[in-house]
Amino acid sequence: MPKLRLSNRGRNTPPSPIRKLAPLAAKAKKSGIHVYHLNIGQPDIESPREFFDGLAAYKDKVVAYEQSQGNEGLCAAWSNYINRTLKIRTRPEHFLITTGASEALVFIFMTCCDPGDEIIIFDPTYANYLGFAAIAGVHLVPVLSNLDDNFALPAHKEIEQKITNRTRAILLCSPNNPTGTVCTEQELRFLYELCEENNIFLIVDETYREFVYDDRKPLSILNLVPESDLVIVVDSLSKRFSLCGARIGCLLTSNEDVIATALKIAQARLAAPTIDQFAAAYMLNRIQDDYLENVRKEFLLRRDALYHSLKQIPGVEAHKPMGAFYTVVGLPVENAEDFATFLLSQFSLNGKTTFIAPAAGFYMQNEQGLKKARFAYVLNKSEIEGAIEVLAAGLERYSQK
Amino acid sequence: MPKLRLSNRGRNTPPSPIRKLAPLAAKAKKSGIHVYHLNIGQPDIESPREFFDGLAAYKDKVVAYEQSQGNEGLCAAWSNYINRTLKIRTRPEHFLITTGASEALVFIFMTCCDPGDEIIIFDPTYANYLGFAAIAGVHLVPVLSNLDDNFALPAHKEIEQKITNRTRAILLCSPNNPTGTVCTEQELRFLYELCEENNIFLIVDETYREFVYDDRKPLSILNLVPESDLVIVVDSLSKRFSLCGARIGCLLTSNEDVIATALKIAQARLAAPTIDQFAAAYMLNRIQDDYLENVRKEFLLRRDALYHSLKQIPGVEAHKPMGAFYTVVGLPVENAEDFATFLLSQFSLNGKTTFIAPAAGFYMQNEQGLKKARFAYVLNKSEIEGAIEVLAAGLERYSQK
Repeated sequence: MPKLRLSNRGRNTPPSPIRKLAPLAAKAKKSGIHVYHLNIGQPDIESPREFFDGLAAYKDKVVAYEQSQGNEGLCAAWSNYINRTLKIRTRPEHFLITTGASEALVFIFMTCCDPGDEIIIFDPTYANYLGFAAIAGVHLVPVLSNLDDNFALPAHKEIEQKITNRTRAILLCSPNNPTGTVCTEQELRFLYELCEENNIFLIVDETYREFVYDDRKPLSILNLVPESDLVIVVDSLSKRFSLCGARIGCLLTSNEDVIATALKIAQARLAAPTIDQFAAAYMLNRIQDDYLENVRKEFLLRRDALYHSLKQIPGVEAHKPMGAFYTVVGLPVENAEDFATFLLSQFSLNGKTTFIAPAAGFYMQNEQGLKKARFAYVLNKSEIEGAIEVLAAGLERYSQK
Repeated sequence: MPKLRLSNRGRNTPPSPIRKLAPLAAKAKKSGIHVYHLNIGQPDIESPREFFDGLAAYKDKVVAYEQSQGNEGLCAAWSNYINRTLKIRTRPEHFLITTGASEALVFIFMTCCDPGDEIIIFDPTYANYLGFAAIAGVHLVPVLSNLDDNFALPAHKEIEQKITNRTRAILLCSPNNPTGTVCTEQELRFLYELCEENNIFLIVDETYREFVYDDRKPLSILNLVPESDLVIVVDSLSKRFSLCGARIGCLLTSNEDVIATALKIAQARLAAPTIDQFAAAYMLNRIQDDYLENVRKEFLLRRDALYHSLKQIPGVEAHKPMGAFYTVVGLPVENAEDFATFLLSQFSLNGKTTFIAPAAGFYMQNEQGLKKARFAYVLNKSEIEGAIEVLAAGLERYSQK
């Protein structure tokens, strides 16, 4: 008799690199240690009052299925929000609302690629892209970006030479998770031209669009190429409005074949959650721009606190991140996962320890991340300073082991 | 230069059979015609007060990610609910909460099957199973059940002979969407034994578990096989508590490898919606059994109204459905889709028409459904009688064309 077995794809799916060490953090907490969570992109910022008002304003007696393409009011409100903030013109019918940006990416991968097709990404990368690729049977082809030049877009030639006859898209996340790097207008234009030359899609994950610092202004690929069949934008309310748990994302494209095809896949899962969409539309129609500006300023304070604290530590290689709320940092250790494990299971300073995400899980070429870690600056300034104080002391102790 | 192209799987995904004719219904409504919706399993029953109370009780300031496996309180509440109503013992850690039963099925397909592996289903089938199979690259292998014997489980031999060395599971929906048939204890035992002999999974979609009529009592596969590595139950709050739009489903199995593997896939999408899970847990901890008993009685009235009305129409082949709130009916027409289109676009009686779902889309062997339609008895008794009066008059007019 054959043995009961699970699928190879299931067995081979890597566990989430940011959740892998979570049991150790839980154990530390049980023993009374305070854990600073710099491992996960879950901001502590309060969600907008207007979202909760929207929840309270939901008055239907039946929580019925929403349309597969999404709540019409939400598509219109999101389109208005983007048009107002980016000074462009999108249309509500070019939106497909998804259960988080995660689902948007799965739909896009399935719509653009058959199993075995390739998408070019930049390494390090948002780790869940690997999971979506596994689900969709897509081969991700990494192009390495480097800590030494603050993870700027790799040289043109390096990207170009990865294009094969199976390449269907280039996928970019800007502002970037995990590196905090923001693409320049010139870099975006180059990527678009490369896609145009090869007639492949340019997928831009703009989840962190407004989180840009110093003299930068939010820049969408749609500012440069307002209507192109090649361009698909992924967007999300999760980070911008501190609504990670509402699971509201979208894909946005003026390519109506893409929308129509993704919609067929979307129909199989019926619809995204009804009440969350209703509340999100209510919020987008009412929220003032100062909410986001205040959030951005708060993250700027945190970024500066993190960067300046890290720069004080001997042997740490830190660059000033330009956007989002992450940075990938070189650590003076042989194995960052071993060090992160040490922090959670063998070290504390005044009853506190720090949870960082080893960077290997963010690299398709894992070895590139061995001595690095991703920091999410999602805590307030004094907590970040406390967390890095712990880290510095931990590094010293670790080096004496 | 190559042509920009979408994936074959995207192009080949069929549109939802229940949503295909929706534009015609929208057009009819715009012209002032009242449309009786018997095409879609969206009940008009009010969602429980306790769910809305749960929404109001959500007090967190940050709508943060829930755990990937689901809200712990919801896993515990759902386990308690099942243990109480079925008099069995499940454990909270054997639940993985999903964004609707849809997502549970995708996770199960991915966990149990590699692309090209096979799952045996019964034809006609819940049409979205085809969509999930397309997403997961799974080949569904249909075994035909027949209108003549009220869609009972096919003969043992017919099922057995479909098992190959690529077969990974048998998938059963009982009570059944689209047929309304309920498996007997004997049939469930046979299926389990067949899976045991071949060491394959038995996946049972129990979304409609409590919707059984006449002398039947809710029966779960877990009543017969409380703890088996082969058994995976799919469950949902959508229909039972009229919460289709909350998108709360789960997979439930005592096979901890299945949970652990599905969880890795689940981590890629981060989590199901936070507030809906919170409200669902709140509701399950408080709701009284009479809510569901009243709902069941209401659907029993509707079933009887539908069945008796249909029996009056010459040439209509209707069986009394045993459960869920669907039935597949033979119509005296050559092409049920053409007739359904006629009803929506060329016919009305006193300003009203009826929307039925042509059955071909529910059959993998489409031609088997050509002269049949699925009816969802999700409207109240007098509306159902009105809808069938329209249908009868429509059939007469259609036959004179």
